[in-house]
Amino acid sequence: MKFAITVTLKKDVLDPQGKVVQQTLQNMGMDTLVNVRQGKYFEIELNETKEDVAKNLIEEMCKKLLVNLIIENYTINKIS
Amino acid sequence: MKFAITVTLKKDVLDPQGKVVQQTLQNMGMDTLVNVRQGKYFEIELNETKEDVAKNLIEEMCKKLLVNLIIENYTINKIS
Repeated sequence: MKFAITVTLKKDVLDPQGKVVQQTLQNMGMDTLVNVRQGKYFEIELNETKEDVAKNLIEEMCKKLLVNLIIENYTINKIS
Repeated sequence: MKFAITVTLKKDVLDPQGKVVQQTLQNMGMDTLVNVRQGKYFEIELNETKEDVAKNLIEEMCKKLLVNLIIENYTINKIS
């Protein structure tokens, strides 16, 4: 079973990396650009057939290692 | 209009960052874990009402700045 996890900074947290990308794109002439936010992406494959067990394990991974819950949000999607 | 872009390493490209995450999770006792791949994630907001124009611009951003086409794949999703 395979999951996609996206980790994004919370709305009010400053994202300097995203701002640099935004400025670079704007300097390249893309003037309809309003905002860029950068995040992390993980694809995690588990050897587990029960979907609820797998989802719980992914949640645990997020909370214990992948996500800083103080400043970040995360979403989990099953991809296969 | 807002788009989500995920950038992942191509299948045969080594992903040392993902491997470190994988080993760490396995050392934490998560033994059903098979594989972890890490990627990048961008949320880009455009001031543009025509969806096809917006999509083309996002494609251009990917090809010119965000993605290294030699070693990376990307997917674009409209989120709002």
